[in-house]
Amino acid sequence: MRVFICGFGTVGQGFAEVVARKQQYFVDKFGQDVRIVGVMDSKSYTVDPEGIDPLELVSRKQTTRRVGDETYTVSTEVLDKVDYDVLVEVSPTDVKTGGVGLINIRHALSNGKDVITVNKGPLALKFRELIDLAKANRCKFRFEGSVGGAMPIINLCRESLAGENIKSIRGIFNGTCNFILSKMDKGQPFEQALKEAQQMGYAETDPTNDIEGYDSACKVVILANSIFGKDVTFDDVQITGITSITEEAIALAASRNMVIRLIGEVSENKLEVSPRLIPKGHPLGISGTLNTAQILTDLAGPITVSGRGAGRLETASAVLSDLIAIMDERRREA
Amino acid sequence: MRVFICGFGTVGQGFAEVVARKQQYFVDKFGQDVRIVGVMDSKSYTVDPEGIDPLELVSRKQTTRRVGDETYTVSTEVLDKVDYDVLVEVSPTDVKTGGVGLINIRHALSNGKDVITVNKGPLALKFRELIDLAKANRCKFRFEGSVGGAMPIINLCRESLAGENIKSIRGIFNGTCNFILSKMDKGQPFEQALKEAQQMGYAETDPTNDIEGYDSACKVVILANSIFGKDVTFDDVQITGITSITEEAIALAASRNMVIRLIGEVSENKLEVSPRLIPKGHPLGISGTLNTAQILTDLAGPITVSGRGAGRLETASAVLSDLIAIMDERRREA
Repeated sequence: MRVFICGFGTVGQGFAEVVARKQQYFVDKFGQDVRIVGVMDSKSYTVDPEGIDPLELVSRKQTTRRVGDETYTVSTEVLDKVDYDVLVEVSPTDVKTGGVGLINIRHALSNGKDVITVNKGPLALKFRELIDLAKANRCKFRFEGSVGGAMPIINLCRESLAGENIKSIRGIFNGTCNFILSKMDKGQPFEQALKEAQQMGYAETDPTNDIEGYDSACKVVILANSIFGKDVTFDDVQITGITSITEEAIALAASRNMVIRLIGEVSENKLEVSPRLIPKGHPLGISGTLNTAQILTDLAGPITVSGRGAGRLETASAVLSDLIAIMDERRREA
Repeated sequence: MRVFICGFGTVGQGFAEVVARKQQYFVDKFGQDVRIVGVMDSKSYTVDPEGIDPLELVSRKQTTRRVGDETYTVSTEVLDKVDYDVLVEVSPTDVKTGGVGLINIRHALSNGKDVITVNKGPLALKFRELIDLAKANRCKFRFEGSVGGAMPIINLCRESLAGENIKSIRGIFNGTCNFILSKMDKGQPFEQALKEAQQMGYAETDPTNDIEGYDSACKVVILANSIFGKDVTFDDVQITGITSITEEAIALAASRNMVIRLIGEVSENKLEVSPRLIPKGHPLGISGTLNTAQILTDLAGPITVSGRGAGRLETASAVLSDLIAIMDERRREA
């Protein structure tokens, strides 16, 4: 199995590490290894049809800040330099245009390659086009890690819950906001909780994307399109962030044995991100940086899942689960 | 797809209803319907190779308390009266001997039939034998609903999390105990909470199996065998129930912002059911009758799932997910 990795930041490096760690598993289960035959970051690249040592790639990137010796200007030309089976597209997300991630995914699918991505931009903007392109070229296209990181949700809904009629999904899709709200539960004001989130590395220097609910909105869009068969984009989501939640509101909620959580909701007629009152002890009332989702189904009732929404190995684990699913499907088709 | 249902209580009737409701889904997805060609309850049976109307079966059972006109003494002779593809074994559980469920499952597997069960007795007592028998006869053998009802856990661990090294699973596997403990959180004494659980129909007249932790222990055994590759039985589990939890203990926990929950735990070296202190806001600290499990993995970290642990359609939904998985595998193999 030959893999090309686009984007070699946290997730790309985490995935390379995972490939190194799980080599024996691939051989035992599928009778073949997984080879990284190409990698590119924002400026450089390296390719080798024989495969490149994943851990060497990680250490090269960490010492030189570049993954390869060669530079490039057009990413799709780099993709054409070596033959591969699966593109792992984990370059930085661009929710305005889809960025280079969208270009790479289009190129790979057009050339009959399977694609795994956690890149929210292309999925939130051009979902239907990419799904149609994958279908037209008989490619597998998977994106488990794009919503909730390590939290199993998309494949769970589409596979384990295949027979269910899913009525709605409500969830905490942004760990940074939940960290801030959990700190506010303990009496911290918003600004101080945000500062602590930044010090811990959960929130970016410009936290707009998280605290205004934009990141959660992207995930709601991906769920709507992939699980509810919608054709919606970011602009279709009603979004309210957490910036105007006061200590008084939190205290009032607490006096009623409730907490405030930023909830993304998708159903047949709803596409919304907003702060909601959740009873303490309810599965959506959890504290900390976890992501969680409650899936309401016709037969099973409510099913809740939670897991780490971000992190090096955590997000890579979602890419791994997609890769295993693809290897499994290919084996059955062979 | 021809199904034989053994056991026509809550789950069996729920499954018949599900078959009726999802007929269009089966046809759309697999190009074939699902026919119930045989059903037996504890005394009577009915078979028809052309298929029997599922809702008629349910209404016959509810009005006459029998599912069929014919009576029998040896259940395996009934199984031989009609040809079928999958046995759905949902007869009452017997955790001492495995009961008629064990006999039926053995018989079906020996005759090359696929089996789906939620019957904990045979799984907790004879897991390895049944798995080996299924393998020797090239049968599919699934039991998602045996742990946690509608909560996805076994298939999730074995499929979505296939690449993970699962280090431990800790969970609430008995909704009755969790209902009682949740009521105690609000100041009710144990006896009163138990009585309320009985009035609500959550606890049986003899609640021993639930409150002494035996039911949870069965589920821990099934997880150990199916996910950790162990060969253990009920007797290998260290069990402490909830009968000696006092109001004082609950109050003391609450003063430290904790709750007490009955937790089943399985890992490489541990097989235990016991009351534990859980921080409020932790995914295992949920209230009410839900089941929940936290799966600790090497890459994804902790993943938590929760869902309804019992109920007519809820448990039937787990049987449905196994049936769909079997139909999917058969289609790929065809």
